[in-house]
Amino acid sequence: MGTTQLETVPEPKYRHLKTVISEALDSEFAVGEILPNERDLAARFGVARATLRQALEQLELEGRLQRRRGVGTTVAPPRMGVSVGSTAHNWPGVSDTAWELADGTREVPPASVVRHLGTGQDEPVHVVRRLRVSGGQPVAAELLYVPAASVPGLAAADAPTGTARGAAVLRELESLGLEGEDRAVELGSARSDDAKQLDRLPGAPVLVVTTRFFAGGGTAAVSVATYRADTCRLTFGDTGDVEVHS
Amino acid sequence: MGTTQLETVPEPKYRHLKTVISEALDSEFAVGEILPNERDLAARFGVARATLRQALEQLELEGRLQRRRGVGTTVAPPRMGVSVGSTAHNWPGVSDTAWELADGTREVPPASVVRHLGTGQDEPVHVVRRLRVSGGQPVAAELLYVPAASVPGLAAADAPTGTARGAAVLRELESLGLEGEDRAVELGSARSDDAKQLDRLPGAPVLVVTTRFFAGGGTAAVSVATYRADTCRLTFGDTGDVEVHS
Repeated sequence: MGTTQLETVPEPKYRHLKTVISEALDSEFAVGEILPNERDLAARFGVARATLRQALEQLELEGRLQRRRGVGTTVAPPRMGVSVGSTAHNWPGVSDTAWELADGTREVPPASVVRHLGTGQDEPVHVVRRLRVSGGQPVAAELLYVPAASVPGLAAADAPTGTARGAAVLRELESLGLEGEDRAVELGSARSDDAKQLDRLPGAPVLVVTTRFFAGGGTAAVSVATYRADTCRLTFGDTGDVEVHS
Repeated sequence: MGTTQLETVPEPKYRHLKTVISEALDSEFAVGEILPNERDLAARFGVARATLRQALEQLELEGRLQRRRGVGTTVAPPRMGVSVGSTAHNWPGVSDTAWELADGTREVPPASVVRHLGTGQDEPVHVVRRLRVSGGQPVAAELLYVPAASVPGLAAADAPTGTARGAAVLRELESLGLEGEDRAVELGSARSDDAKQLDRLPGAPVLVVTTRFFAGGGTAAVSVATYRADTCRLTFGDTGDVEVHS
């Protein structure tokens, strides 16, 4: 990466350093290649570790670099466009190939979800855990919260445990008339369980997509999906085209 | 915030610390209140600075804390729901009250935008800079890229400089038949010019919304809007309701 000395640059060093590294990534590094360690990099560019770290952190936020557990900092591939919103309203499907059914349980949802569902503070609801896989990689971990009242047809017999229970809940949902849905996207940090599923470090920045499914004049289910922010670009619109956005 | 000693907790200290601080924020701190400095906090909880910083960083990602230039770390207000996508397709309007026209220039767009527009590598296009204000706060800085070919009616006379030029470009756009639009949302880091407009520190995490406007069978304009990730939750859907999501 050369031995450019940045001491004399007027603008904040880390910002110029960012540009220099970014150009080096384009010209000298291959996707997946592991960067030299911070000490070596700082020495090469003649900057303090703190300055280097600032530049690396921003390149990570922008999807140019990836920090991976037990691997180090590698050159990231271009982000994948992952279709999230479309004009066609659909229930999360039992046979949705994009999502792998991982588990089905009954739990008390977090306060934010309780607010959306309007369920009792300590009222357990059906929780379906799914994993979204795209291009062979896990891109999102989802928790779908479904109040018992939304799936009255669900007999105890239909809902043993694990994925069988999850599938039963999704089947029941599909029998409801879906009146609409809306979504919110916000920044979050990966919870440890999601982090493991997504092969991220706990606390890594993620994109949290909260979807409310409307039926029977109210919110019949709420999905909280944690998307990898490093590898994913969430696409909205009729095209939902992957290539176009990558 | 008490003097809980965390030395004996089995789970990763920062994660338990995060919970403890989070509860303290709910019970003992008011929105906007400034936290004690890192040294004092670390001492109170009996943890290393690094552990404390890890917990604070995650609480910042989750929107509980805000780091503000020249102020320090403060307790963040609940995030605002900011409507981004709706089913109604509209050109960015001249008289759109949510957006303040800030400038109009001609520049060569970044490579990613050139790819969408299909313009020449060194071909300058009209660039309209707008600032989105919500609840009296700047929430997004937008750059709208419009190739000359999309606004053939725009005479040099209509387009002097600054906001007048920006307004002329938007007026011309509105005369085109909009065939559709799509959006992509991804994580980014605040460029210094956007950071200043948004009252953020350069490099802070932001949500970058790229919108492609389709007309005449192609991409007639591309908008790249940088939203504050700390105060905003982007909402998509017919409701686009602020309250619901906050």
